[in-house]
Amino acid sequence: MKTEIGIGLAGFGTVGSGVYKNLIRNGALIEERTGVAFAVRRIAVKDLAEPRKVDAPDELFITSPDDLIADPSIRIVIELMGGIEFPLKFIRKAILAGKSVITANKALLAEHGKEIFELAKEKNVAVFYEAAVAGGIPIIKAVREAFVGNRFESIHGILNGTSNYILTRMTDAGLDFSPALGEAQKLGYAEADPALDVNGWDAAHKAIILASLAYGFWVEPSKVLVEGIEKVTASDIRFADELGYRIKLIATIKADDKDEIEVRVAPTLIPKSHVLASVNGVFNAVAVRGDVVGETLFYGRGAGQDPTSSAVLGDLAEAAAALISPRESCGFATHDLYGECKPAADSISKYYLRLGVEDRPGVLAQIAGTLGGAGIGILSVIQPESHTEGSVPLVLTLHDAPYGKMQTAAATLASLPCVKTEPLLLHMESFS
Amino acid sequence: MKTEIGIGLAGFGTVGSGVYKNLIRNGALIEERTGVAFAVRRIAVKDLAEPRKVDAPDELFITSPDDLIADPSIRIVIELMGGIEFPLKFIRKAILAGKSVITANKALLAEHGKEIFELAKEKNVAVFYEAAVAGGIPIIKAVREAFVGNRFESIHGILNGTSNYILTRMTDAGLDFSPALGEAQKLGYAEADPALDVNGWDAAHKAIILASLAYGFWVEPSKVLVEGIEKVTASDIRFADELGYRIKLIATIKADDKDEIEVRVAPTLIPKSHVLASVNGVFNAVAVRGDVVGETLFYGRGAGQDPTSSAVLGDLAEAAAALISPRESCGFATHDLYGECKPAADSISKYYLRLGVEDRPGVLAQIAGTLGGAGIGILSVIQPESHTEGSVPLVLTLHDAPYGKMQTAAATLASLPCVKTEPLLLHMESFS
Repeated sequence: MKTEIGIGLAGFGTVGSGVYKNLIRNGALIEERTGVAFAVRRIAVKDLAEPRKVDAPDELFITSPDDLIADPSIRIVIELMGGIEFPLKFIRKAILAGKSVITANKALLAEHGKEIFELAKEKNVAVFYEAAVAGGIPIIKAVREAFVGNRFESIHGILNGTSNYILTRMTDAGLDFSPALGEAQKLGYAEADPALDVNGWDAAHKAIILASLAYGFWVEPSKVLVEGIEKVTASDIRFADELGYRIKLIATIKADDKDEIEVRVAPTLIPKSHVLASVNGVFNAVAVRGDVVGETLFYGRGAGQDPTSSAVLGDLAEAAAALISPRESCGFATHDLYGECKPAADSISKYYLRLGVEDRPGVLAQIAGTLGGAGIGILSVIQPESHTEGSVPLVLTLHDAPYGKMQTAAATLASLPCVKTEPLLLHMESFS
Repeated sequence: MKTEIGIGLAGFGTVGSGVYKNLIRNGALIEERTGVAFAVRRIAVKDLAEPRKVDAPDELFITSPDDLIADPSIRIVIELMGGIEFPLKFIRKAILAGKSVITANKALLAEHGKEIFELAKEKNVAVFYEAAVAGGIPIIKAVREAFVGNRFESIHGILNGTSNYILTRMTDAGLDFSPALGEAQKLGYAEADPALDVNGWDAAHKAIILASLAYGFWVEPSKVLVEGIEKVTASDIRFADELGYRIKLIATIKADDKDEIEVRVAPTLIPKSHVLASVNGVFNAVAVRGDVVGETLFYGRGAGQDPTSSAVLGDLAEAAAALISPRESCGFATHDLYGECKPAADSISKYYLRLGVEDRPGVLAQIAGTLGGAGIGILSVIQPESHTEGSVPLVLTLHDAPYGKMQTAAATLASLPCVKTEPLLLHMESFS
C-alpha cells in the first residue's frame, strides 16, 4: 500500500539541493521502507537565474515560498532558506495552514523555538528539526525518543566542525589560530565570514536546542555563556597537552541537584583519555549521560550537503508517518520538572589560567596569595619554557569555583604590576 | 491529557527488575514527556519464592505468563524471560491476542524474527526490540528510522562486551585468553558458562538483527560466518600491534555492488587509528556507513541492568504512541531491493596469518611459493622474536581474497612439513 505525499522545498542551496538529489537517488529505497513516495512539487528560490548545484526540472522552481504553502498538493514544507526573520514568518504561515514543517535552521529554533512549538501545538502540526543539530547524527531522536526514560545528567558536544577543524590543526601542526582558520577557509570548512563558527554561537544555537529538549523548557540565549576559540593560542594547546588535556570547543549542558540547568559553549580542557578528545577534524560528537543508560556517545559529520540531507530524509519519513496517523506530539514536549537556567556566574567548574608574568622570585607567591585571598584553590602550577618578550608564561589549574568569582579573581590578577599580559581563563571538564 | 497504559512484565531477572526499578524511579518524568502513565499490572516469574533483586509489591507477581496476556487491563507485554522456545510461544500468543510486544531477546529474533514479524504484520501489532542489540545504544532506532534515507554501505559493530573486555585485558595487560576470561568472570562480566559470549554467537544474533533491518530481509543464521575469540593469543595481539592493528571481535555487515549481503562475526584486525579500536572494556559501539550520511558511530554500554532498561523504556514510549495512534509498521519493513546473503566462502577481505614454522633458511620461500600458487598475494611478512619450543612464529598479512580460497590455502600450508603448529587465520578490515 503506497501513499504519495507532496512536499515543497524552500531553499535550494547546499542543503536544499542535497535533499533533492538524495531523494531522487534513494527514493525507491525510501518508498520500499516507508510505503511513502515523496514527490517534490515545488522548489522556492530567491533567483530563478542563479546557477543550480543540482539538476532539477525548471518547472518546479518558483520565487515565492508562500506559493508552497498555498499549494494544496503540498503537505510537508522543508525550510532550508537561512536567516531568521523571513523563515520565522514562513514557518508561522505554514503551521497556520496546517502544513507539517521540517527545518534545519538552528538559529531560528534557538531564538524562536518557544513560539514555533507553542503555535505548532495549538494547531496540532508537527515540526521536525533533526538536521538543525549535528548534521547527520540522529541526536534529536536519541534525546527525544530513545532516552525518554532518562534524566539527563549531562550532555557534552563538539557541535561546530569548523572550530573543531581549527583546533585539531592547532593541535596536530602547532599552528596558531589565524593560519589554522586560513587553512579551513581554503578547504571550504569555514565561511569567508567565519564569525558564527569560531565565536561559539553556531554551537550555542545547537546547545540551546539540545538543552531545551533534554529539560523540557526553552533555554533563553541570554542565559548561555558563549565564548569563542579566537583567544586560544598554540601555546595554550601545548601547555594543556603537558597537563594531560586537549582543548576543544565544548558545549556543556548539565543539571545540578536542584534541577537548575547550566548551558555553556566555550573552549574547554578535556582529559586526553576522554572519547571526545579523539574527535578530530570537521567531525561532531555528542556525549550524553543519562541516569539509566549511563555514558553514551554519538559521532558523525555535523555539516555538509549529504549528512544534513540524511537528517532531513529521516524527518520526512517521520513527518509522513505523523500525517498518516497523527500523534499528539509537536516535536517538543514542555514539562515542569526542571527549574531555570542558572546565571553563568554561578556555574561551577575547574579552570585553566594562563598568565604572562615578570620573571623574578616572589611573583608566584603574590599570585598564589591573591587566589588564596579570593578563596580559590590551586590544583597545579607549571612554568613552561617559552620565549616571550618581557614576560614568562605561568599556567595554573584551579579547583572548582563559581565562574563569576573566578572572573573577578582573574581581573584582580590582571591588575597586578607583575602580570604583564591579559590572562586567559578556560574551563576544564573532568567528566566526574 | 494523561493516558494510563497497563503493562505486564514477563521475567524479573536482571533486566526485568531493572525495567521495574527505573520505571518507578523516572515514572513522573516519563509521564511529563509522553503524556502516558505506565502501570505495571502483573509480573510473571518462574518461582514466587525466589529472592527478588528489586522490591515490588507481592500482589503483582504471578507464575503464568499467559495470565499477562489474558488480563484485559494489560496492553503491552515485555518479554524478558530468556530462552527461545518458551518466549516464542509466549510472543506468538501475545500477538494473536493483540498485545503490543517488547522484547530484548536477540537469540529469539535472530532465529525466529521472520515468523514473529510476519505474524505481527498480519495482526497489525507492533513489536519493539531496541534492547536486543547493543543495550542502551539506540542503534535499532538509528538504522530503522534516522537513516531511512540511506543505503547502508557497511555496519561494523563491537556487540559483545564480554569478548571486548577479554580482548582489552589481553591487549593492555598481555594476558592470554584463559586468565583474561577468568578475570571477566570474577568481575561479573562473563557468565559461569561464557560460551555464547566468547564463541561469537551472542554478537552474531545481534548482527543478524541489524543486517536484516538494514537490508529488509531476514538473514539466515546458517549464512553467517561466526568465529569466537578463543584461539587468539596474547602473541597475536602483540604481532597485530607491531603491524598497526588491534584485534577486536567485530561484526561486519556489508552490501556489495550486486546488493549481495555479507554478515560475519570474527576476531578481526582493525587499524589502531579507527575509532572502533579505542572502544575498550565492556563498552559496545556500532559504526554505520550510509551512502548519504557517511561515517557515523554510536557508543555506550551494551549490557547490564540499567542500560538495557533504558532501551526498554524507550520502546515503551514508542509502543504507547503506536497504541494511541496506530501506525502500519510492525517494527520491521521487508522489501525486495536486496538479494541474498552470499556464502561465507565468497566473502572477500584481507587476512592475518600466523604460522609456527621451522627455523631454517628456505621456509619462507616455500610458504610464499604455496601462497603464490594459490593466487594469494602477500602484503607483509614479519618474523617476530618469540620463544616457542620447536618452531618460530611467522606472521603474514595477505591481499584481498575470498575466504574459501584463503582457508584452502591455509590448510595446504598446515600440511607442509616445515609448518609445525595449526595456522591462525584472522580477517583484517581496512574500512576502505
